Amino acid sequence: MGVMRLGHVRLRVLDLEAALDHYTGVLGLLPVHRDPDGTAYLKGWDEWDFYSVILVEADEAGIDSFAFKVESEADLDRYREASLGHGVAVAECEAGEVPFCGRALAVTLPSGHLMHLYAEKRFHGKATGNLNPDPWPDGLKGAGGHWLDHVMIMCELDPARGINKVAENVAYFRDVLGFGLGEQVVAGPDGDVQAAAWMFCTTTPHDIAFGAGPRAGLHHVSFFLDDWSDVLRTADILAKRKVKVDVTPQRHGITRGSTTYFFDPSGNRNETFAGLGYLTQKDMPTITWTEENLWRGIFYHSGDVVGDFLGVYT
Amino acid sequence: MGVMRLGHVRLRVLDLEAALDHYTGVLGLLPVHRDPDGTAYLKGWDEWDFYSVILVEADEAGIDSFAFKVESEADLDRYREASLGHGVAVAECEAGEVPFCGRALAVTLPSGHLMHLYAEKRFHGKATGNLNPDPWPDGLKGAGGHWLDHVMIMCELDPARGINKVAENVAYFRDVLGFGLGEQVVAGPDGDVQAAAWMFCTTTPHDIAFGAGPRAGLHHVSFFLDDWSDVLRTADILAKRKVKVDVTPQRHGITRGSTTYFFDPSGNRNETFAGLGYLTQKDMPTITWTEENLWRGIFYHSGDVVGDFLGVYT
Amino acid sequence: MGVMRLGHVRLRVLDLEAALDHYTGVLGLLPVHRDPDGTAYLKGWDEWDFYSVILVEADEAGIDSFAFKVESEADLDRYREASLGHGVAVAECEAGEVPFCGRALAVTLPSGHLMHLYAEKRFHGKATGNLNPDPWPDGLKGAGGHWLDHVMIMCELDPARGINKVAENVAYFRDVLGFGLGEQVVAGPDGDVQAAAWMFCTTTPHDIAFGAGPRAGLHHVSFFLDDWSDVLRTADILAKRKVKVDVTPQRHGITRGSTTYFFDPSGNRNETFAGLGYLTQKDMPTITWTEENLWRGIFYHSGDVVGDFLGVYT
Amino acid sequence: MGVMRLGHVRLRVLDLEAALDHYTGVLGLLPVHRDPDGTAYLKGWDEWDFYSVILVEADEAGIDSFAFKVESEADLDRYREASLGHGVAVAECEAGEVPFCGRALAVTLPSGHLMHLYAEKRFHGKATGNLNPDPWPDGLKGAGGHWLDHVMIMCELDPARGINKVAENVAYFRDVLGFGLGEQVVAGPDGDVQAAAWMFCTTTPHDIAFGAGPRAGLHHVSFFLDDWSDVLRTADILAKRKVKVDVTPQRHGITRGSTTYFFDPSGNRNETFAGLGYLTQKDMPTITWTEENLWRGIFYHSGDVVGDFLGVYT
Repeated sequence: MGVMRLGHVRLRVLDLEAALDHYTGVLGLLPVHRDPDGTAYLKGWDEWDFYSVILVEADEAGIDSFAFKVESEADLDRYREASLGHGVAVAECEAGEVPFCGRALAVTLPSGHLMHLYAEKRFHGKATGNLNPDPWPDGLKGAGGHWLDHVMIMCELDPARGINKVAENVAYFRDVLGFGLGEQVVAGPDGDVQAAAWMFCTTTPHDIAFGAGPRAGLHHVSFFLDDWSDVLRTADILAKRKVKVDVTPQRHGITRGSTTYFFDPSGNRNETFAGLGYLTQKDMPTITWTEENLWRGIFYHSGDVVGDFLGVYT
Repeated sequence: MGVMRLGHVRLRVLDLEAALDHYTGVLGLLPVHRDPDGTAYLKGWDEWDFYSVILVEADEAGIDSFAFKVESEADLDRYREASLGHGVAVAECEAGEVPFCGRALAVTLPSGHLMHLYAEKRFHGKATGNLNPDPWPDGLKGAGGHWLDHVMIMCELDPARGINKVAENVAYFRDVLGFGLGEQVVAGPDGDVQAAAWMFCTTTPHDIAFGAGPRAGLHHVSFFLDDWSDVLRTADILAKRKVKVDVTPQRHGITRGSTTYFFDPSGNRNETFAGLGYLTQKDMPTITWTEENLWRGIFYHSGDVVGDFLGVYT
Repeated sequence: MGVMRLGHVRLRVLDLEAALDHYTGVLGLLPVHRDPDGTAYLKGWDEWDFYSVILVEADEAGIDSFAFKVESEADLDRYREASLGHGVAVAECEAGEVPFCGRALAVTLPSGHLMHLYAEKRFHGKATGNLNPDPWPDGLKGAGGHWLDHVMIMCELDPARGINKVAENVAYFRDVLGFGLGEQVVAGPDGDVQAAAWMFCTTTPHDIAFGAGPRAGLHHVSFFLDDWSDVLRTADILAKRKVKVDVTPQRHGITRGSTTYFFDPSGNRNETFAGLGYLTQKDMPTITWTEENLWRGIFYHSGDVVGDFLGVYT
Repeated sequence: MGVMRLGHVRLRVLDLEAALDHYTGVLGLLPVHRDPDGTAYLKGWDEWDFYSVILVEADEAGIDSFAFKVESEADLDRYREASLGHGVAVAECEAGEVPFCGRALAVTLPSGHLMHLYAEKRFHGKATGNLNPDPWPDGLKGAGGHWLDHVMIMCELDPARGINKVAENVAYFRDVLGFGLGEQVVAGPDGDVQAAAWMFCTTTPHDIAFGAGPRAGLHHVSFFLDDWSDVLRTADILAKRKVKVDVTPQRHGITRGSTTYFFDPSGNRNETFAGLGYLTQKDMPTITWTEENLWRGIFYHSGDVVGDFLGVYT
């Protein structure tokens, strides 16, 4: 019972064909459906549900919404009550309102982001099938991303005005949705301002992360790769295709992940992320990063301040 | 709520000092405690509970018991009732009876193996700590195994006599403990004999596996490594230390894991296993391997029958 | 001045189309030319000369000849004289006799193998070009082998009859062609029988190797891969394509290379070999393996005797 | 006959103990000797000669000299004549003048750098020995660098004044020492200014490189690692030890190498470099990078201009 995983993100892109070319040719997602208005649905080859990324053309880049899949309809009822009890607005969505999904809840997070919870989505199957499967399918393009791994969203933080949407989101995901808090950054003169958080519903280091900024937005969407050799291969592919790279291959201190950041043609930040990192569990002590070690946490190898990394987002 | 992870294994070894040298020097586990009778407790550097391996001297190698950690005492009550309802014998253990643990349940599995469930164990902490941690600690020995990953036990299967302890264990773990069934081997003339199973309570490909053999026993205990480069490094270390290697670096078809098998000095089979493989979820369709593809599933690269791999165990 | 590298091998295959499918689809060589009789010429994407593998249909698998490229025609003159002085038969080949090559020498090695030396071959260019090149080209198939790396040939050894063609070949390559001796196996009751040798003209661990057997033949032809992650990927591809695998990914003690062995459809043994291993130099002391460590030298991880590995060849 | 390899570098460091700690603890070189004045000699574990790095305390960081080993004394005679014929100043050094070496030539390169050529150096042996060796020794520290791989020196370039010490060095190494030119950067309005060059005497992509700057100096000394997984491990170690990192793990377009740059405590730039990259040969066409692709050549993944990378050197 409970939340299973990040199910999908709905991204706004400025040019749908350019975006499709990027998400299929660079990230290696598989296109599964187009709406009459062009809206595109894609999935990672290792995912079984119908899609995990929706690309919708818009005048401004960013994230419209993201969604988590729960185990059963009963979870939806339970989360509806608990959200309301927590003071978080929830609306019901009929089956199909979230495309190809059953009944859903539309949650307006404390940070202002729109999040759906759903229990059913059309089934598609992994590219390798369920019977005597090969470990990976033929014909993958680009990075061959396995699945949508996590999303990092930016939340308003203004201690002077008593606003900390990071902490409010953390409380909601912990108390209502039962997520664990894997890692956090604490800041401020007293080290008591929760300035970033990495939370999990699976047993991986994070399924969602919250960072602090002047406004709500999307920091990045991340796709899973096997290991560090895939990180190199992906970075090579980014260079071959002249993709705008934000951060070349690195180790995160936070989550231990090996990573590369880059931008889709609309300026939405993507990450390819490799390795399990470590196993998370409800009884694992939360890892805390202090403000003076923040950049070592973000980019372990250099520890350098990279202002645009936190300041530029959609 | 529910089962969190494989907490520990209690292994019988013929020579405790030789075993300690192996589990610390080859696998890189950290020794944390010795009982007055010599019984040794070890943990992986990336584990926070006090121990995950108990080595006890005995006349015969094998596994005495293994244990899963659950989230809360309430889980113990729930599993006690459900086990009895399922027809599985359960005994209560007072705090301390399972060393350094709180109250526990002693479950006699359909296969005859002894399994404990417990909710509390003495805390020790990761070697890297919880405050601004490095991704790995200095001074690791041998393979530097992160944690006890899973155990594979052998269960009696004799279709002619209507005995299938694999299937009985699967039913118990699925129906009572809420595990998912990630992969299975089906055999027999009608392809309806469940001859092996890989089950999960985390979101990794397996936390326990059941294989079929003429008698109950231990097939292997497995420790987690980051990736394929660690598999090579570990195999090099095995060679340097003249450890008896069973299976050189390979890819499993089943779980996709990259692996090396070898024996501790008493003949208990160890595995070092790398990579996440894939993310398991309750709604992931079970992967099925048919009998004629069994060996491709076990050793993907060669697909060769290696009789001793299934026939030799403790 | 001197021998530069292994230039090509001419392999006998039983079915040319099956062989072409294997060498292009599995090894990833690029087809560059067909003769009217079907004889096929292929090259690695990272080679600049016109071809490195010739496949010719025949009733029996094996190697017809192999060839080394020297720096200049003057080298041919010099090696002609020195070979004759060494008692080794040399014939002149006119330009074109060795296809697409200039004037060549046909050397009958002490072991009986036919080897050509040539100074000119038609130029083709790397797949990545010479101007602002990417590190690897798009569209590679299979293993994407970089280049023909080395060949191992089997030489008659019969100490009882005073026959050691390994040692005779070593003397020829060292004294006439100026190769270095990187590693050797010594055997026999007095440890003075040179039973295998790895020799270099580049600064890699070997460009040619000699093994001992009851008759002259081909042990394997080897193609270069970047690193251990490519070894895994190649082994996965072998499994996907159901290629007969001889030895799954391993570390050699000899040369330190990481390797996989398999067979082409005609039964010629192939190797994919990764990493530099170490830098060879004329003043590097030769590494010696004693008979009791022979198998540790061949297959470092297991050290196991694999009788067919030395006994089966074409 | 000819130049075999880069034999050693003599580096000026501001604090000898801090430097020793860095070159042993971070790079993993083995200390082999100290002079009475503290001058330290180190070697990589995979090198057989007595040392490859000399650390000498000085008021200013930089490189005093570097040295190449040739095959024989006859080479020294030959190079002496050819250098003089080329207009390059050469002085004779008696045995021992270059420490632990035989007779040597002191060459003042067109760029002003001091380079020694020698044919003999005291022998020490690889850490793994020559008899049934393991592929790597126990007890390595830090990155465990295999050997001194290459050096990049900065040479004055001022087209307006008709000064191009890059091109002059290239001509000397090519025409007198017989090096090959693997890659070059051409710049200037007509694309005819050779602004950087990578040259080889082994069959690896480079043994020495020349870059252009306002003054002669040392750009970096580089040490060999096996592969990309060692690059990650080394970068982790740099972070653990708070070494000043210049460039986090990347792929070079030029040489294809995977790399990390950092500084020793005195500000001398170090590189750890992994992989063979490709095999160089005398008949391999030189790879040319044009000015607008220069940064893609240097840092393939981002292609970004990193001004300090070329502007900061010792």
